Amino acid sequence: MAYNLLKGKKGIIFGALDKKSIAWKVAEKAHEEGAEFILTNTPIALRFGQLNELAEKCKAEIIPADATDIRDLEMLIQKSMEVLGGQVDFILHSIGMSMNVRKKRVYNDLSYDYFQKTLDISAVSFHKLLQTCYKFDAIKEWGSVVALSYIAAQRTLYGYNDMGDAKALLESIARSFGYIYGREKKIRVNTISQSPTRTTAGSGVKGIDGLMDFTERMSPLGNATAEECANFTIVLFSDLSKKVTMQNIFHDGGFSSIGMSLKAMQMYNRSLDCDDCPDIE
Amino acid sequence: MAYNLLKGKKGIIFGALDKKSIAWKVAEKAHEEGAEFILTNTPIALRFGQLNELAEKCKAEIIPADATDIRDLEMLIQKSMEVLGGQVDFILHSIGMSMNVRKKRVYNDLSYDYFQKTLDISAVSFHKLLQTCYKFDAIKEWGSVVALSYIAAQRTLYGYNDMGDAKALLESIARSFGYIYGREKKIRVNTISQSPTRTTAGSGVKGIDGLMDFTERMSPLGNATAEECANFTIVLFSDLSKKVTMQNIFHDGGFSSIGMSLKAMQMYNRSLDCDDCPDIE
Amino acid sequence: MAYNLLKGKKGIIFGALDKKSIAWKVAEKAHEEGAEFILTNTPIALRFGQLNELAEKCKAEIIPADATDIRDLEMLIQKSMEVLGGQVDFILHSIGMSMNVRKKRVYNDLSYDYFQKTLDISAVSFHKLLQTCYKFDAIKEWGSVVALSYIAAQRTLYGYNDMGDAKALLESIARSFGYIYGREKKIRVNTISQSPTRTTAGSGVKGIDGLMDFTERMSPLGNATAEECANFTIVLFSDLSKKVTMQNIFHDGGFSSIGMSLKAMQMYNRSLDCDDCPDIE
Amino acid sequence: MAYNLLKGKKGIIFGALDKKSIAWKVAEKAHEEGAEFILTNTPIALRFGQLNELAEKCKAEIIPADATDIRDLEMLIQKSMEVLGGQVDFILHSIGMSMNVRKKRVYNDLSYDYFQKTLDISAVSFHKLLQTCYKFDAIKEWGSVVALSYIAAQRTLYGYNDMGDAKALLESIARSFGYIYGREKKIRVNTISQSPTRTTAGSGVKGIDGLMDFTERMSPLGNATAEECANFTIVLFSDLSKKVTMQNIFHDGGFSSIGMSLKAMQMYNRSLDCDDCPDIE
Repeated sequence: MAYNLLKGKKGIIFGALDKKSIAWKVAEKAHEEGAEFILTNTPIALRFGQLNELAEKCKAEIIPADATDIRDLEMLIQKSMEVLGGQVDFILHSIGMSMNVRKKRVYNDLSYDYFQKTLDISAVSFHKLLQTCYKFDAIKEWGSVVALSYIAAQRTLYGYNDMGDAKALLESIARSFGYIYGREKKIRVNTISQSPTRTTAGSGVKGIDGLMDFTERMSPLGNATAEECANFTIVLFSDLSKKVTMQNIFHDGGFSSIGMSLKAMQMYNRSLDCDDCPDIE
Repeated sequence: MAYNLLKGKKGIIFGALDKKSIAWKVAEKAHEEGAEFILTNTPIALRFGQLNELAEKCKAEIIPADATDIRDLEMLIQKSMEVLGGQVDFILHSIGMSMNVRKKRVYNDLSYDYFQKTLDISAVSFHKLLQTCYKFDAIKEWGSVVALSYIAAQRTLYGYNDMGDAKALLESIARSFGYIYGREKKIRVNTISQSPTRTTAGSGVKGIDGLMDFTERMSPLGNATAEECANFTIVLFSDLSKKVTMQNIFHDGGFSSIGMSLKAMQMYNRSLDCDDCPDIE
Repeated sequence: MAYNLLKGKKGIIFGALDKKSIAWKVAEKAHEEGAEFILTNTPIALRFGQLNELAEKCKAEIIPADATDIRDLEMLIQKSMEVLGGQVDFILHSIGMSMNVRKKRVYNDLSYDYFQKTLDISAVSFHKLLQTCYKFDAIKEWGSVVALSYIAAQRTLYGYNDMGDAKALLESIARSFGYIYGREKKIRVNTISQSPTRTTAGSGVKGIDGLMDFTERMSPLGNATAEECANFTIVLFSDLSKKVTMQNIFHDGGFSSIGMSLKAMQMYNRSLDCDDCPDIE
Repeated sequence: MAYNLLKGKKGIIFGALDKKSIAWKVAEKAHEEGAEFILTNTPIALRFGQLNELAEKCKAEIIPADATDIRDLEMLIQKSMEVLGGQVDFILHSIGMSMNVRKKRVYNDLSYDYFQKTLDISAVSFHKLLQTCYKFDAIKEWGSVVALSYIAAQRTLYGYNDMGDAKALLESIARSFGYIYGREKKIRVNTISQSPTRTTAGSGVKGIDGLMDFTERMSPLGNATAEECANFTIVLFSDLSKKVTMQNIFHDGGFSSIGMSLKAMQMYNRSLDCDDCPDIE
C-alpha cells in the first residue's frame, strides 16, 4: 500500500546490491511512494549485483561511484543533479565492509590497513558524501539524510569485530554533520539502527544464525525485516519527521530495550538443563 | 497535505484541552489521515477547554474519564469499543500535572501527597490505561500506543521539579509494558520526547521563556512545534513503524544531541562580555 | 587490605539484613576503611536479620527506621547526628521491595496499591531520605550519597516486574536531587548499577539462576559480587570521586556494554543444536 | 593525602606534557600512591614539554614513543617490561590531536588526510597500544587501562570539530577491546569523560573560555579539575574497581546529567534581557 509520501521528491540511494539489500527495498518503497532517484554503488558491486533489474523497475538511473573517492562523489553529485534537475530531497547511505572480518583477522590481531579501510568505507564515506553535497549545495532545505547502523555501535557483539567501531564513528558523524546541516540548511541527518538482517553483506558475520535466533527471541516484536526497515526509512525521508535530527533510532523489534526476555531465557535454560549436551567451558 | 496513513484506523486520544495542545493537533492530523477516534479528558478539563469544537471538526465522540481511576478507564475502554465497533489501532497519552510545581513547592521541599499525585497522573495513569486495555483486549494486533515525554527524564532542568521523575517513570512503564504487549499481542509502545512547547499546560513551568529561547538556539532545526510533533505521532501510529517499540524518540530539532551550539554560545557570551549588566553570583 | 579511605568519616547505612546483603559488605568495608556509622533498617528486618552481629563487629549503633516514614527518618537523622557528633559524610541507600513480585502479580495485572508501595519503598524513600537530610543540614560539604540500582532501569528483564520502573524512578531522583545538593551544598548523589546478586532479597526474582548464568557468561569479567560492589561503593564515598555526581555507574563486569558474548552464545547455541531437548515454542 | 592505593603496582602513562596536563597529575598521584611507572610521549612533545622534571620527581623513566607507530609501541612495551621487571598493572592513554582544528578547517570542509590523522592519533592509537600489549602479554591479570575522553563523543559541541568523532571512536574501541581483555585476561578497559580542562592541548579549542564558563555554571559541582580527574583515574587503576569495565564514566561535576541549571540560565537570561547589548542573529 502506498501513500504518496515522497511524491515529487528526488534522492540518491547508495548500497543496493541484490533483492536482499535493505537499500534495494528502500528503492522499491521510494518508487512506490512517488520518488525519483539515482541508484549508486561501486563498479564491482554493479558487476556482481542485479542493480539493472532494480533500476528498470524504479525507472532510476544508475551512476557508479566509489563512496570513499571524493572525485567519484563529486561526479556522482553533479551528474545526479543534472539527471534529476536540481537539488535532492533525500539520501540513503547503506555502506559497510570490513576486510578484517572477511580475512578472519580477530579484534586483537587487526591489520591496521584493513581497519583504516573499514572506517573509511563504513563511516568516513558518510562524511565525504555529506561534505561533497555541502560543497555543491546539493540537498534541498528540509531534506533528509539517513545512514544504516547497528547496535554494535553501543554494545560489543562477538564476531562483529571492527565494524562496531565503524558504526560508532558513523553515528558520531551523523550527529556532528547533522548539527552543521541543521543550523545552516535546515536539513536533517539520522541513523537507523536496524535488527541483524540476512543480507548478502550481513551473511559474512560470524555466527549470524545463532545471533539472529537470539535477537528474534529477545525482541518482543521479533527481528525487523529489510522491508520493514525500508518503510521506516521512507518515514524519515518524508515531511512528517522534519524535526527529528542527529538521532540514532532503533528499528529492532524492541531488542535494544530488553535485558532478558522469556523466550530467549527458555532457549538458554534448555541448554543449562541439558545433561546429554556436549560440554562447554 | 494528507496521505491516508490512518485510513480505517480507530483510536483514543487523551489530553486535548485547547488549540495549543499537542493532543489537539494529533486529533486534527489523525482526522485528516482518515482515522476515527474517541477524545477523552477529565471532566474538569472538558469544562475549561474547548473540546466540543475539536470533536465536531473531527466527527469524534467525547467520553470523559479520569485516567487515574480504573473504573473510569474501564468505562472509557468499553464505551470506546462500542462506539468504534471493536478494537482500537492507536492510543495517545498526553497527560501530565504536578501540584508541587503549581503550588511552588521546590524539589527539596516536596509535598509527598503531591509527589504521589504527580506520579499517578503523569506516569502510573499510563500503566492503568495499558492494563485496562489488556484486560479488555482492546488494542488490535500491530496497534500502536504513544505517550508524550520530555528530556527531563534524562537530564535535570531547573524548575521542572518532580515532573522529571514522572517522565522517567513514564518512559520506563512504556518499556516494561511494551515488552509484554509486543510479546503477547504484537502491539508497540513508545514515547516521544518533544521540545518544550508553549501549551497551556507547559506555560506553568518556571522560566519557560528563557528556556525556550535557549533550546531554540541550541537545536540546529529549532524547537519542534506541536503540529510537527503531531505529524511524527501519526507516523508512529501508522503501519510504517511496525517494528519500533520500547523506544523513546527525541523529536526536538536535535537538542538532545547538542553539547553547545554556536547560536546559544553567542547569546551566552554576550552576557559574559557585558560590563553594564546587573551582577550575577 | 585497607587504605584508610574513610578515615574520620561518618555515615549512615540503610538496608543490611544478613551476610549476603550488599549493605552488609559495605558496612564491613567502611569499618575497615576507618569510618564510623549508623546501621538502620525496618523493625521487621531487624527482627529477622542478623544486624546485631554486624553492629558489634563494626562498633556501630543500630537505629530502626522505616525509610518511607518521614517521622522515622527525622528521628533517625537527628539521632544519628547526636550519636556521631555532627553531620555525616556518606549515606548508602540499599532498599527495594515489590509486593507484586512477592504475590506473583504479573506486570499486566499489577495491584496498584502494591505498585505504589513498590515505588514508595524502592524509590520515593530515597527522596524522603534526601529531603529529611536537607532539612536538618545533615550532610557535610563534599559528602557522598549512593543508592543501589539495577540495569532493569534501562532494559526490561522478564520477571523483574515493577521493580524496573522503581529503579528508573530511583535513578531519576538521584539526578534531580543531585542537582540541588551539588548546587547548594557541594554534595554528590549517584547510583551504582550492580550485577544481579544472590542476596536474600534478590533471590525472590523469578528465574534468578538462569539469569545469573546468562549474565555471568555475557559479562567479560563475570558478575560482580556483593563484596566487589562494596569496594566500589567505598570509592564513591571517598575523597577521590569528588566531582562524580548525578551518575549511574555500571558495576557489572561489563554486562551493560555487551550485545552478545562468545560464552553466552555457546551456551545458547547448544540449545539450538539440541535435537533431543524438549520443544520450545 | 595518600592511601597506598597503587602500592607495588606498575604502569605506563602516556601524554604528560607540562604541569597542566591531566597525565602529569595522574603521574604525581600514582607516585604518591606507591606506583612505579614509565612516562612516554612523542619525541617532539618531549622536546617542548617539561617531562624531565616530572620524571625526576616520580623517579620514573622516560621512553619516547609515537603511539601511532607499531614499532615504537613494541619497543616501548618491551623496554617498559624490562625496566619495570615484568607486566604492568595500569596504563593511561591521554592522547588527542586534530590538525583540522589547528589549521581551522571547519567540519564541513575537513581535510581527509587530517581527519585520518585525528582518528589515528586520538583513537586508533589506543587500539594499537592495546593490541601491542596483548601481543606481548604485557598487562597483568586484573590490570586496568584508562583513556581520557570528552562528552563530545555523545553530544556535538560547536568548535570541537572532528575531535568529537575521534572520542566516539575511542570509546567504542575501549568497549570492543574491553570485551576481549575481560574475557581472556580479566583486564578492564574504561574511559573517563572529563570536564573541559584548561590544558595546553585543550586551549586550542575554539571558544574554550565561554564554554568553560557555561559548563562551570551548568555543573552543580563546577568543572572537574585535572587534579580531581587524576584522583578518579587512580581509583580506576586500584583494586577497588575490579568489576568496572567497558564503561565511559563522566567525571564532570554533573554536567552530563543537566538539561539547564539555574546559574547558567541566569547568565543566559541576562543577555536575553539586555537592550544595550550588540545584536545577535
